[in-house]
Amino acid sequence: MTNPLRDPLDRRLPRIAGPSGLVIFGVTGDLAKKKLMPAVYDLANRGLLPPSFALTGFGRRSWSDEDFAQVVHDAVREHARTPFDERTWKQLATGFRFVQGEFDDDAAFDELARTVTALDTEQGTGGNHAFYLSVPPDAFPLVLRQLARSGLSGSEPESWRRVVIEKPFGHDLTSARELDAVVSEVFPPDSVFRIDHYLGKETVQNILALRFANQLFEPIWNANYVDHVQITMAESIGIGSRAGYYDGIGAARDVIQNHLLQLLALTAMEEPVSFEADALRAEKEKILSAVQIPEDLDSHTARGQYAGGWQGGEEVRGYLEEDGIPPTSETESYAAVRLDIDTRRWAGVPFYLRAGKRLGRRVTEIAVVFKRAPHLPFDLTSTQELGANALVIRVQPDEGVTIRFGAKVPGTAMEVRDVTMDFGYGHAFTQDSPEAYERLILDVLLGDPPLFPRQKEVELSWQILDPILEHWARRGQPEPYAPGSWGPSSADAMLARDGRTWRRP
Amino acid sequence: MTNPLRDPLDRRLPRIAGPSGLVIFGVTGDLAKKKLMPAVYDLANRGLLPPSFALTGFGRRSWSDEDFAQVVHDAVREHARTPFDERTWKQLATGFRFVQGEFDDDAAFDELARTVTALDTEQGTGGNHAFYLSVPPDAFPLVLRQLARSGLSGSEPESWRRVVIEKPFGHDLTSARELDAVVSEVFPPDSVFRIDHYLGKETVQNILALRFANQLFEPIWNANYVDHVQITMAESIGIGSRAGYYDGIGAARDVIQNHLLQLLALTAMEEPVSFEADALRAEKEKILSAVQIPEDLDSHTARGQYAGGWQGGEEVRGYLEEDGIPPTSETESYAAVRLDIDTRRWAGVPFYLRAGKRLGRRVTEIAVVFKRAPHLPFDLTSTQELGANALVIRVQPDEGVTIRFGAKVPGTAMEVRDVTMDFGYGHAFTQDSPEAYERLILDVLLGDPPLFPRQKEVELSWQILDPILEHWARRGQPEPYAPGSWGPSSADAMLARDGRTWRRP
Repeated sequence: MTNPLRDPLDRRLPRIAGPSGLVIFGVTGDLAKKKLMPAVYDLANRGLLPPSFALTGFGRRSWSDEDFAQVVHDAVREHARTPFDERTWKQLATGFRFVQGEFDDDAAFDELARTVTALDTEQGTGGNHAFYLSVPPDAFPLVLRQLARSGLSGSEPESWRRVVIEKPFGHDLTSARELDAVVSEVFPPDSVFRIDHYLGKETVQNILALRFANQLFEPIWNANYVDHVQITMAESIGIGSRAGYYDGIGAARDVIQNHLLQLLALTAMEEPVSFEADALRAEKEKILSAVQIPEDLDSHTARGQYAGGWQGGEEVRGYLEEDGIPPTSETESYAAVRLDIDTRRWAGVPFYLRAGKRLGRRVTEIAVVFKRAPHLPFDLTSTQELGANALVIRVQPDEGVTIRFGAKVPGTAMEVRDVTMDFGYGHAFTQDSPEAYERLILDVLLGDPPLFPRQKEVELSWQILDPILEHWARRGQPEPYAPGSWGPSSADAMLARDGRTWRRP
Repeated sequence: MTNPLRDPLDRRLPRIAGPSGLVIFGVTGDLAKKKLMPAVYDLANRGLLPPSFALTGFGRRSWSDEDFAQVVHDAVREHARTPFDERTWKQLATGFRFVQGEFDDDAAFDELARTVTALDTEQGTGGNHAFYLSVPPDAFPLVLRQLARSGLSGSEPESWRRVVIEKPFGHDLTSARELDAVVSEVFPPDSVFRIDHYLGKETVQNILALRFANQLFEPIWNANYVDHVQITMAESIGIGSRAGYYDGIGAARDVIQNHLLQLLALTAMEEPVSFEADALRAEKEKILSAVQIPEDLDSHTARGQYAGGWQGGEEVRGYLEEDGIPPTSETESYAAVRLDIDTRRWAGVPFYLRAGKRLGRRVTEIAVVFKRAPHLPFDLTSTQELGANALVIRVQPDEGVTIRFGAKVPGTAMEVRDVTMDFGYGHAFTQDSPEAYERLILDVLLGDPPLFPRQKEVELSWQILDPILEHWARRGQPEPYAPGSWGPSSADAMLARDGRTWRRP
């Protein structure tokens, strides 16, 4: 029960989930162990889960409840962000259950239904259950059908059932619609929570605070003052053991379709009337539907495949030599696209999106690069080293905001040079930033949907990407690039053609 | 000789003075010992003075050239910013001369004229000489007359003579005009350098770079976005041994008339066509001539006198108990005024200026406080602790720029709280910031006048202050305030009436 003295509208207070259960499909996967189980524990440890909470695993292994508890325990010990607390653990562990079975095993799902119903009395979960599908997308239809068949997807009037699905939401517009058809056959739209874990990140949510709680930034947040925007998601690692997932998907489907287009939407959208789900999603959808792809896709997109070589003192394999990658693979490990937004606010301001593996450094950032001052009352020579003003939202690592501007060089008559001012999330707040999955799991249990994209957003994103992907498919092999570099030369040429350069973050 | 390979227009290069001499009147004063002598040495040590430079002292003491050199040596050892270098010192000391005399002693000035002429051959100063009047203003007429009589003020066609005068430039408009009449009888306007040492400070010059070399700030630098501006010059010390100077002058004449109104002018002025002296001064004068004082001076000004008491663990005397202060003195040690600027850019935006001694902390800053965002799509409660955005230019100490804005509090749904981002001059540049007097003495020797106020600016500033000072004179004793506080309660009431509060910097 929520404390009756708490004002549920007071968003300064931590929000606490009500009685509920979470069922995870895919408990042996990396996501479950590294993110979901630790997030559940951290939520409990922060006091945000009620005593009447249950966590059920479903999988092929012949585990007892105790075996499952041990798996969760090991995952928590290794990956949780809050210190291990014996009392929290013991309390939480009373709600652990495990159900063994294959996805095509009706009996196993009937057993799961019995377990869940039993939890309502044993643990007091009140009929409220969320199903987290941490499984490959081709298993979605089967699991969803089983949830329907066994009655798990249907809720009583005073309780709820929700389903959580992870990207990829299809691999193009058609398959995304097919997937949605399957999901919506079983769950109504309000009960479907699509996880884009980037939206759970504090810095991403801070884009909204930065833009709309301040008077400083919004007046210059438009085509009058902004020259262009660069959204970068760079990883320094290769695909590792994820060949099976990654090959045939590539950088654009893997992160541009979801994370980067969501960052674009939050950066470019108009002010929503409120941060309620409908208002927020409507603004994001407006922006995504105004996105235009360039006519000449050869000049305004770029893709690459990392070659083998030396990176940071270590010899690394090229994409085509990675385990499980066919030597003829045309999957891109680097993708860059120029997008334009046909609105009054952004006409003429290109948004450059890039994502890649084996790049110089792990960094995700949004850089709003401003035009130069229209006139400089300085000697020409004294501003030679002056770049454009920029506001950079650092999403990870080292979350924060940096502003680059020109300041006078001491001791000179009036030379101006670039300097930066900095706000570090970690330095500014004593509060620990919760992990994205903590926030999102809590939102699922609370039924608070603003941070989850709607199907419409998914479809709009595929509409943007599909023509680019089709174009690339006709172009064959991507351009190789050196590991530890900042991508293929065609990406640099793409910006050079517009008279701009990529940031070296 | 200037290096012929140097491009004189390249303002990135250090500017080096040509052959010249500096004559200081008032060599035994604090300013000469703490600022002028060390600045001359530091300029030499930085390589900005030519070998053909001379420094002459004039005073009552019966010193030899060597005695004077020893005085300079001690001052340099104690106050110079650059390390002591024996070679620099020996080279510099070859040009030291001392002339003994009173200001009414014709023979002494004739001797000074002979010394200066001799330096042109002995030291190669080429007939170029600057006279620094580091003396009480009542001595100005006499010294200026002597400079004229002895022929020191007149220059040959290819050389120059300049005079440097220090504030106070009069104590009201009438006396400022009288003083100027005396000065301009002897020196043409171009040869008069009025020192406001605040304008020599790097951070003050950085106001121009910040505003006009960037695209970020100027679009919001106006009445549409700015709520008000606070310009503060606070000192934690009392008047010390300066009773003779300070009493009858007070905070408004001492620093508001010059430093604070100059800061206001640089903050509020339109963009000049260039940073040449005429263009820059014209914009400052435009702003100063647009300044309006409030009709109701009782509500929109405040003044105080520090009382005795405890400050930082030390018992300190009140203003009226200081040595040399008459117990009935009505001189204010704290002054605050509200000024309005009648321009399109600033209509409706008050500029609050305050200056005082025995305040909480030594700080000089310009705070541009922005309006709140016109609409906040947040819950009311989630922005309760949100202040207004502010951009603060810290002039001293700890020179730099701070921006205050709202950011999301981690772990909350969407609570926004004030955070700051910071640019520190000392951290951003490896170059040492030269002392204000270094910059200004170099500018005098180079004949580079942008950082020196014209007589017109002096008069405009008195025009602003005179009615306020006359009003205060009719009001008798200023309100006492506790040492270490932030001034009298009437100052707080003055802002409270406008619905605002003073910053606690």
